[in-house]
Amino acid sequence: MNRDCPPTLQWIGETDGHLRLIDQTRLPTELVEIDCHTVEDVWQAIKRLSVRGAPAIGVAAAYGVCLATQAGGTIAEVRKACDYLATSRPTAVNLFWALDRMRSVVEQDPSGEALLNEARAIHEEDAAMCAAIGKHGADILVPLFEKATSESIGILTHCNAGALATGGEGTALSVIFELARRDLPVHVWVDETRPLLQGSRLTAWELTQRGIPCTLICDNMAATVMKEGRVQAVVTGADRIAANGDAANKIGTYGAATLARAHDIPFYIAAPTSTIDPALATGEEIPIEERDAEEVTNGFGSVTAPEGVSVYNPAFDVTPAELIAGWITEERAMDEFNLS
Amino acid sequence: MNRDCPPTLQWIGETDGHLRLIDQTRLPTELVEIDCHTVEDVWQAIKRLSVRGAPAIGVAAAYGVCLATQAGGTIAEVRKACDYLATSRPTAVNLFWALDRMRSVVEQDPSGEALLNEARAIHEEDAAMCAAIGKHGADILVPLFEKATSESIGILTHCNAGALATGGEGTALSVIFELARRDLPVHVWVDETRPLLQGSRLTAWELTQRGIPCTLICDNMAATVMKEGRVQAVVTGADRIAANGDAANKIGTYGAATLARAHDIPFYIAAPTSTIDPALATGEEIPIEERDAEEVTNGFGSVTAPEGVSVYNPAFDVTPAELIAGWITEERAMDEFNLS
Repeated sequence: MNRDCPPTLQWIGETDGHLRLIDQTRLPTELVEIDCHTVEDVWQAIKRLSVRGAPAIGVAAAYGVCLATQAGGTIAEVRKACDYLATSRPTAVNLFWALDRMRSVVEQDPSGEALLNEARAIHEEDAAMCAAIGKHGADILVPLFEKATSESIGILTHCNAGALATGGEGTALSVIFELARRDLPVHVWVDETRPLLQGSRLTAWELTQRGIPCTLICDNMAATVMKEGRVQAVVTGADRIAANGDAANKIGTYGAATLARAHDIPFYIAAPTSTIDPALATGEEIPIEERDAEEVTNGFGSVTAPEGVSVYNPAFDVTPAELIAGWITEERAMDEFNLS
Repeated sequence: MNRDCPPTLQWIGETDGHLRLIDQTRLPTELVEIDCHTVEDVWQAIKRLSVRGAPAIGVAAAYGVCLATQAGGTIAEVRKACDYLATSRPTAVNLFWALDRMRSVVEQDPSGEALLNEARAIHEEDAAMCAAIGKHGADILVPLFEKATSESIGILTHCNAGALATGGEGTALSVIFELARRDLPVHVWVDETRPLLQGSRLTAWELTQRGIPCTLICDNMAATVMKEGRVQAVVTGADRIAANGDAANKIGTYGAATLARAHDIPFYIAAPTSTIDPALATGEEIPIEERDAEEVTNGFGSVTAPEGVSVYNPAFDVTPAELIAGWITEERAMDEFNLS
């Protein structure tokens, strides 16, 4: 985001403060912020995707817990707020991870100050994590630029894993921002990402704000762009990674990874270690949220399908580890997934 | 289409008549017909996709030539109309094929009656072609039903290759209609087909009108539906087939074919022989129409991308013959493509 743009989410004030966040459902045509003064406000903001992206959801939920201590919330009410916020979305594990950290604080020191300090720590760590992911990811992509025969190196991304999805500069997009900072000629192919168009509404917006060359495509054009030799790597975020490296991410990611494999293009996942859920042996155990049919049939001002048609609208899919060339975390880049 | 529905396109009157067609840009919310009284009307209707689908474009253009003989058109003007109508869209070869037939008539007997007879013959042959494709396609898919372990056999299709795309019952959808007529339990997975949503607007509409079970998905969900074992075959139409069997069809078809291969699902092309262009050795020679960025950034009542973003919007892609399990024409079904 450029300097004129407010942060994706910020805490306003001290222990009696509130959470302010960009309403991402209004982008790219309107840059509007909303203020969340209650736990319910935060739950609704997560549910309706005003704030989205696995890391950003975790940060928002942590601040949401702080709101429960206001209006004289008891420990029981704060615990209840943690449980309630965990129901807002089922797939991203960072949400549960952040709430677990807040629960630990509640048990030790349930003061508003202690909770706010923890939420701020989660937020700050998230920003630092983004920067580290950017550096590790750029390091492993640099060889593509060294052997490039074309003017630029094409990187395809799906959905939005940028500043809007995190407390910092993003995960997949942080890698791209770091490549641009190193003056490497990157060109981003942006999957629009149906049904909610996080690619065209959010990723294309973040990239154009920063002046990074990019081209928007419909998801079904990715195969052709790959066949035409315009994509040298695919990088996406993740919402949950199982113990074997299988990664859940926005619906369409598995298709992009499968197409990348068919065209001998490496596919990378960029995500913080808080996205890893060692309790799940494989991606088959990751719960996948299904969302309303209206997102597909009536998304952007018009009814675009016949009334009553049956719709399947899973919000995420799972890419098996065998299709993933590398996992980029804030700690390291791995070409074989391991938890240790 | 059910019996209450008007035909996709029809000639009203005799040699002094005009072409009436369903305005497909208004479906599925409004069923509106438009009357074309001039060559220019027909050119515009093809260009803006009020009538689309390779076979239907051919029929519409043939009737368009008839309009040139009215208002006392000279032979030169009729020839000019043929040349002009050929510029409406570049990829579908049926357009040029139909216009070549009309040109032959002009040279022999440029009367309005002769031209109208030829246009009607093209239209009637197209309807017969659809029926034959349906039978040949159903014959090769029947074994899937015989060895089925699930309640229904899933067939995925992309874009619209139905009654709306032809002068009859369609190509890919004609196969499905024939399976349904044989009381075989088919379930159709309908790719919505961005950017113009011919799948959700037109194919889902044709299927629900006929009561055929179907589920609408975004294009980027096809990989997941395949991985889940819900798709046993993919069948699409084609806009042009090269001499080696490579097939151009709506953007996204190549991706669907690549995903089908990765999941060991057979991918079939259903198209009339008039779609085959023996003059082109391979699909690389097929001209691919690029359309306006606004189709991607501002399609359905809202601006969904940042202003000025670069967009790549090819209307078609080419599926190489090696990904195609069979070509279904009105003459036969081939598992190896050959022209003889």
